[in-house]
Amino acid sequence: VGSRAERVAVGVDLGGTNLTGLLVSDRGTVAGRELRATPAALGAEAVLGAVLDVASGLAGQARELGHEIAGVGLGIPGPVDADRGVCLFSPNLGWRDLDVISRFREVFNVPVRIDNDVRAATLGEAWLGAGHPYRTFVCLTVGTGIGSGLVLDGRLWRGPGYSAGELGHIPVVDGPDAPPCGCGRRGCLEAVASGTAIGREGRRAASRGEPTSLARLPAEDITARVVAEHARAGDATAARVLRRAAVYLGLGIATAVNLLNPEAVIVGGRVSRSWDLIQPEVTRVVSEKGFPPNLLFLRGVFPAELGEDAGAIGAASLVLGPGGGAVSR
Amino acid sequence: VGSRAERVAVGVDLGGTNLTGLLVSDRGTVAGRELRATPAALGAEAVLGAVLDVASGLAGQARELGHEIAGVGLGIPGPVDADRGVCLFSPNLGWRDLDVISRFREVFNVPVRIDNDVRAATLGEAWLGAGHPYRTFVCLTVGTGIGSGLVLDGRLWRGPGYSAGELGHIPVVDGPDAPPCGCGRRGCLEAVASGTAIGREGRRAASRGEPTSLARLPAEDITARVVAEHARAGDATAARVLRRAAVYLGLGIATAVNLLNPEAVIVGGRVSRSWDLIQPEVTRVVSEKGFPPNLLFLRGVFPAELGEDAGAIGAASLVLGPGGGAVSR
Repeated sequence: VGSRAERVAVGVDLGGTNLTGLLVSDRGTVAGRELRATPAALGAEAVLGAVLDVASGLAGQARELGHEIAGVGLGIPGPVDADRGVCLFSPNLGWRDLDVISRFREVFNVPVRIDNDVRAATLGEAWLGAGHPYRTFVCLTVGTGIGSGLVLDGRLWRGPGYSAGELGHIPVVDGPDAPPCGCGRRGCLEAVASGTAIGREGRRAASRGEPTSLARLPAEDITARVVAEHARAGDATAARVLRRAAVYLGLGIATAVNLLNPEAVIVGGRVSRSWDLIQPEVTRVVSEKGFPPNLLFLRGVFPAELGEDAGAIGAASLVLGPGGGAVSR
Repeated sequence: VGSRAERVAVGVDLGGTNLTGLLVSDRGTVAGRELRATPAALGAEAVLGAVLDVASGLAGQARELGHEIAGVGLGIPGPVDADRGVCLFSPNLGWRDLDVISRFREVFNVPVRIDNDVRAATLGEAWLGAGHPYRTFVCLTVGTGIGSGLVLDGRLWRGPGYSAGELGHIPVVDGPDAPPCGCGRRGCLEAVASGTAIGREGRRAASRGEPTSLARLPAEDITARVVAEHARAGDATAARVLRRAAVYLGLGIATAVNLLNPEAVIVGGRVSRSWDLIQPEVTRVVSEKGFPPNLLFLRGVFPAELGEDAGAIGAASLVLGPGGGAVSR
């Protein structure tokens, strides 16, 4: 089976830290994989060079295997003009108004499509993951920040300014004590429910002298992952920090449910690895704050299924069958 | 001009209190009008009879004028299956799973379409009102309750369960002190920013013995309209009550802006008659809580233009050119 010629696409998920490239067939199998650190510190051209290098390597693998290359898809953090193929602004990468498609066309003689990384992950989950059974769903990514992709009646809703789905920046805490957000403002959902917020609250609890096993660690070691580990090991303070984030996540999800009437909400991103710990509070708040007719229609809030591969798989889907922004089943 | 034959539709906006019927031409002119009180207290059949009566009267006027009748459109409070033409549930009218289309077909030999009243008002504003210049906008109605219609890339987003746009029921206040909402829960936007909430807060302020001109009135006379009148006459307490509602309205609008990336937000409903009083706080909060890239794309938050006629005009548009759920320009 492995040697049979297939139609494949190169999908690349370009994160601020890591770069994931996959060779994905139109039947949804992963035929090749390349991982590398994003050379963000070396500047915009170095990052673009690394992406082109990973994509070229995977395209070479595809040719050796005798596969037909349908195209290259790329997911990028920050707002992306998916129609013109231009990255509007990506502070982590140093990109601004970068015509990515043109740069790729100098190297590849196949169709190239780009989209925002969260939307790419959403397309991945729609194609091969937890979103597959649903025509209308919201896909959250909860990691360093919080983003979301909106699939409405089988189509990705990007917004006319390519800026829809900013669930991480809806206001949830008000007043001068509202925690600061990465966006420079205060009280956004991201400021209280992201991995960054969970780590910050863990460090704060430890420094307050609460009786928590977190207090034994140097402050810089207390990340969301560590808070989750301590919660799982029975630490009450760590569990409380996670529960608080989960409550806010539930409020954000209920807001999206009431506004959009989705069939499902999918939660991905690194924080979703602690799904067993956050799920009870998320579910409780959604059922309390969801509008009853909308809850009646909601099949559930589910963890994402594709993990770290969601973005690259979705990027590949941009040029394969499910591509073009539409989600096919 | 008045005697020239035109293609017209009967549009009926069925409210819990009033029933508005309009004869609307496909060029957007109103050729006839009929108003009456909704006989809600007399039961479901009496209400349906009144709607049929108003529609028949307007159809008769159309025939007398020699107009071609394209069909009948009806806006109904509560969730409506716009595809099957069934009112799923309308507590104020006593309707539940009522096959409205079939009942109309017994009387009218023309196409009949129904939709939710807020969505009908949204279609009205899209066709002939403040939403006209925009392909993507959110239309709020702020009156007894709060609802919203979502127009995304020129199409109304109803949601698969016909329950999208429940902006009135997003959670904005938490804790045991959160005010009760008409939906039976607590802390919804509607519970702090609707006309009902403004009236309640006005009565509360008056009963607390604050130095307000509202305290001279019997409690039952203090409605949102009266609070606005006293605010306009210089009463500081009334102004504060309105400002507080406006702040919450701004939070709800910022949430919709961040999630959907609309070009505009339109505010209709009775409370929008006090637009001059609430606009400054609404605008301030939206610019503070809106995500910067989304604000960059937002042309503004504007008052609705069609007043009480929006729903009936939108209902007519369901069967005229702009109908079928799509919004044409």
